[in-house]
Amino acid sequence: MPLIVTGTVGIDSIETPTSRVEKVLGGSSVYFAASASFFTKVRLVAAAGEDFHEDYHNLLARFPNIDIEGLEIRQGSRTFAWGGKYFDNWNARETTFTELGVLAEHPPKAPAKYSDSKFIFLGNSHPSVQREFLHAFPERIFSVADTMNLWIENERQALAELMGDIDGLIINDEEAHLLTGIRNPISAGREIIDKMGPMFVVIKKGEHGCILVHDEGVAMLPAYPVETVVDPTGAGDSFAGGMMGYLAAAHSKDLNVSRASIQQALAHGTVIASFTIESFSLGRLAELTKEEVAQRYIEFQEMVKIA
Amino acid sequence: MPLIVTGTVGIDSIETPTSRVEKVLGGSSVYFAASASFFTKVRLVAAAGEDFHEDYHNLLARFPNIDIEGLEIRQGSRTFAWGGKYFDNWNARETTFTELGVLAEHPPKAPAKYSDSKFIFLGNSHPSVQREFLHAFPERIFSVADTMNLWIENERQALAELMGDIDGLIINDEEAHLLTGIRNPISAGREIIDKMGPMFVVIKKGEHGCILVHDEGVAMLPAYPVETVVDPTGAGDSFAGGMMGYLAAAHSKDLNVSRASIQQALAHGTVIASFTIESFSLGRLAELTKEEVAQRYIEFQEMVKIA
Repeated sequence: MPLIVTGTVGIDSIETPTSRVEKVLGGSSVYFAASASFFTKVRLVAAAGEDFHEDYHNLLARFPNIDIEGLEIRQGSRTFAWGGKYFDNWNARETTFTELGVLAEHPPKAPAKYSDSKFIFLGNSHPSVQREFLHAFPERIFSVADTMNLWIENERQALAELMGDIDGLIINDEEAHLLTGIRNPISAGREIIDKMGPMFVVIKKGEHGCILVHDEGVAMLPAYPVETVVDPTGAGDSFAGGMMGYLAAAHSKDLNVSRASIQQALAHGTVIASFTIESFSLGRLAELTKEEVAQRYIEFQEMVKIA
Repeated sequence: MPLIVTGTVGIDSIETPTSRVEKVLGGSSVYFAASASFFTKVRLVAAAGEDFHEDYHNLLARFPNIDIEGLEIRQGSRTFAWGGKYFDNWNARETTFTELGVLAEHPPKAPAKYSDSKFIFLGNSHPSVQREFLHAFPERIFSVADTMNLWIENERQALAELMGDIDGLIINDEEAHLLTGIRNPISAGREIIDKMGPMFVVIKKGEHGCILVHDEGVAMLPAYPVETVVDPTGAGDSFAGGMMGYLAAAHSKDLNVSRASIQQALAHGTVIASFTIESFSLGRLAELTKEEVAQRYIEFQEMVKIA
C-alpha cells in the first residue's frame, strides 16, 4: 500500500569520538525513505534549498524505490543544515549549530498524485503542520508520528489534537517521561494509549532497543548489537522507515496491526537501523542488498529467541 | 545436579525514591539462593554474626529448597551491614555505609558433605577467595563467578587466574568496560571469552536487560518490564540464581551449555529478578509460587518473540 513520509532534508556536519564529516546528506525524511525503500516504494515529501547539489541527488537516486516527485527544491532558499557532536559514550550528543533554511518557510505540500497514500509517517515537526499534512490523505489507514521535547513542552494542545488522529507514536524514553510525567516507560506508554489516542507507542532507548506498548500488550526489542558504530545519526528515522516500509509491504491487502505484527515490523526497523549506523549518512544503506537485510533479520530473530 | 553458592549475607538498610527500610535480610548469596530455590535445591555457604536474629532465620526458612547447613553463625561477630540509597532515576545508587563484620574475617568454608557439588556460583568476593572456594569441588562441571570494580582495578592477576578456571562470568556493562578497556559490550565480551578464559560472559545492563556473549555467538535479553519497582537491590544476584538454578535443574543428566541453553536459563533469571524487585528484601519471593514463575516466563517469551 502506498507509503508517504514527510520530514526534513538535512545537510549534516557530524563529529564522533572517532571521525568527522562535513555537509553530508541527512534529515529525517531521507533516512526514513532510504530505509523504507528496502521493503516498498515510498513517497518523499520534503523541501531543500538551491544548495542541494548533484551529489545529494545522485545519492538519493541510488534508492530506486524512493519517489522524489514530492521533494521540492526551492531556489533562493537554503537547505536545513545541522551540526552535531557525539560524546565519548556515543549516547549523548550536542547540536553544534542549526541553520533552519527552508524549515523556517512554509511546509512542503504533497503532489496531488500522492493523495491516495494509505500509510503515512509524520517526521518530527510542529504538530499542527503534521496534522494538516495527515488530513490531506482521506484514504489513510495507518499513520504514525514522531515528535520532540520542543513540541511536548510548548505545543501541548496541538500535540494532543495530533495524537487523537494517529495510530502510533514513536518517541524516546525521555520524551515519554516529559509527555506523561511518568518515568517508567511501560507506565508512560500505557498512559499515552489509554488517554491520548494512539493505539500503540514505540519508546526508543537507543542502543538498548525499544519497548512497544500496544492495546494488546507490551513487547520489548533489543537493538541489534553493532560492534563498530560509525555514526548514530538517523538511527531513529531509519528504524521508523524500516518498520513502516515492512508493514506497508507485508500487509498490502489486509492490514494487520496486532502487537505481533507491529513487533515484527519493529524488528525489521531494528535491522535496517543497525546498517545505517555502520556509516555516515546513507553510505552503508546505498550499498546494502535485500539479501543482507534478510540475513541479518534471521540472525536477529535467533539472537532474541528464547527456547 | 547439586548447586552451591557462596557470597554475602547482608543486613540492608535501603532508601528508594518512594520508600525506606531498616535492617532487612539481603546479601548476594541470600538473593541468589532464594531465587535458585524455585528450580532446585541450593547449598548456601556464607557467614553471619550473632546479630543474625530469628526473623532472618524464619524468612530463610520459607525457602525449603535452601540448604542452610553451610550458613555459619559466628558468635562475637557482626553480620555484614550495608546501607544504600537510590536516586530518582532508580539506576544510580550510593552506598551510605558498610560495616564489614564477618566479611573482614576468614571466609566461610563449605561443609564436607557439600564436596560433591557440581554447579558452583561464586558471589562477588576477592578473586583468590573465590578461586580457593572453587577448587574445593573436584566434581564441579559448571562454574560461574561475579566480580566488581574493586577487584578489577586492584587484583588483576588474581582475577585472571580465577577466570582461567570458570565457565562463565557475570558482570555489568561498566565492569566489562573496566576489565577490557573496550566500551562496546559485545566487543568487550568477545575479548573476555577470546583471551581470558570463560566460555561465556553475561553483561548486565540493569533495566535494559543483558547481553550474552558466548563461544557460539551473541544473544540479547531485555529485562521483564516491571511497572512498580519497589527496590532494585538483589536483582543481579537473583538473576544469577534463577539462571544457575534453572540450568542445574534442567540438565540434571546431560549438561547443555549451548548458547540457546544459557539464553533460556538467563530468561528464567530475568523472570525471577523481576519478582525480586517488586518488594524489599525477599518479601515478594517468599510468597511467590512456581506457577507464577512459569506464567511470567511464558509471558516474557511472548513479549520478546519476533514472528
